[in-house]
Amino acid sequence: MRIGRVIGTIVATRKDEKLVGSKLMVTQPLNIDLMPKGDPIIAVDTVGAGIGELVAYTTGTASRIGARKMDAPIDAAIVGIIDEIDINKALLDKS
Amino acid sequence: MRIGRVIGTIVATRKDEKLVGSKLMVTQPLNIDLMPKGDPIIAVDTVGAGIGELVAYTTGTASRIGARKMDAPIDAAIVGIIDEIDINKALLDKS
Amino acid sequence: MRIGRVIGTIVATRKDEKLVGSKLMVTQPLNIDLMPKGDPIIAVDTVGAGIGELVAYTTGTASRIGARKMDAPIDAAIVGIIDEIDINKALLDKS
Amino acid sequence: MRIGRVIGTIVATRKDEKLVGSKLMVTQPLNIDLMPKGDPIIAVDTVGAGIGELVAYTTGTASRIGARKMDAPIDAAIVGIIDEIDINKALLDKS
Amino acid sequence: MRIGRVIGTIVATRKDEKLVGSKLMVTQPLNIDLMPKGDPIIAVDTVGAGIGELVAYTTGTASRIGARKMDAPIDAAIVGIIDEIDINKALLDKS
Repeated sequence: MRIGRVIGTIVATRKDEKLVGSKLMVTQPLNIDLMPKGDPIIAVDTVGAGIGELVAYTTGTASRIGARKMDAPIDAAIVGIIDEIDINKALLDKS
Repeated sequence: MRIGRVIGTIVATRKDEKLVGSKLMVTQPLNIDLMPKGDPIIAVDTVGAGIGELVAYTTGTASRIGARKMDAPIDAAIVGIIDEIDINKALLDKS
Repeated sequence: MRIGRVIGTIVATRKDEKLVGSKLMVTQPLNIDLMPKGDPIIAVDTVGAGIGELVAYTTGTASRIGARKMDAPIDAAIVGIIDEIDINKALLDKS
Repeated sequence: MRIGRVIGTIVATRKDEKLVGSKLMVTQPLNIDLMPKGDPIIAVDTVGAGIGELVAYTTGTASRIGARKMDAPIDAAIVGIIDEIDINKALLDKS
Repeated sequence: MRIGRVIGTIVATRKDEKLVGSKLMVTQPLNIDLMPKGDPIIAVDTVGAGIGELVAYTTGTASRIGARKMDAPIDAAIVGIIDEIDINKALLDKS
């Protein structure tokens, strides 16, 4: 999984019928300082994530597993809401 | 899914026979400001996307699912036409 | 699929036996201006692509599907020869 | 696999139920000098890796195989603890 | 496949038991000039590649196919030893 923040939603009237009923959230990947890095993805929400929340999201087949929709064209899904991240940055200094 | 814009088409007379009948659209990935970022991909259209439209596209196995062609060499597909994106960029400032 | 140009071949005497008989082409990914971008890949040719030709290639499982060799260690395949690309670059300017 | 260092943990109360019981470790990808490169991922620990340890981690389907949880939304897993890396950098100079 | 050079080995006493018996080689991705580019990966050797050799390696499911170990957490494998690369760089200049 990657760390991301939910920053918005999209509306798509014409879409694959297997996506109907899935909440499509614009999710921004974050770096180790929880700052934006890279381009936003559209992930299916599977855990009731709200706008602004810090989340863990998957890509690929894991996303269809998370969404319980193996027959839907889903390649990214939010599978956890992060309450707390405990990182020891000092560990990055040792080679 | 990623956000992209359909910017063109390709013609390929000699191609895998399983691709015959699929509309191959040149699709430009976009960043959070909906500006071009990265290199274009060739995605199979599954929702009737037109040139210039803002779309959501998948990569990998999800694309064959979207195209309903599990036996075709497809690794990218347009699965939704985006009517509206609602992003709160202020959320990107909180670490 | 991605857009690439076939720029060479490799010879590998010792290789996975399932690759025997497959033509391994060095393929350079191209950007929107059809100029080199990123590092070359080795793709299995499935459509009779010649050196110098502009091609569409897949990555991942789609490549084994294209090669009709699901049991071979193939992760990239040329699945179409591009006769013509029609791109409207002006579309990239609208945000 | 890629080389990484375990630098932390996350707490996620609301998450996919298939992730319950999996240890989610924040893992930093490393470059050839074992220095941080790229953004951290959240990997499921399958080998008892501790904070600060140098590890080998997989991405994609290999991760669900490593975790022995094919039905869980897992796309990254720690599958080995690296005791020793023996690299001959002089080899990088020959073209 | 990508082009790489085998530059070392790793020792991992604690690892997924399905990896026991697999030779884990540190492999450096190379660019078109066969110079290092990007970060090293750990690939399972399936063809008897030695330190310093130029190789073709796969990523993803193709790697488990190459290793003949579909139930092992493998996401990269060396599947060929490159004897010769024949590239026509002049082809890169035509747009």
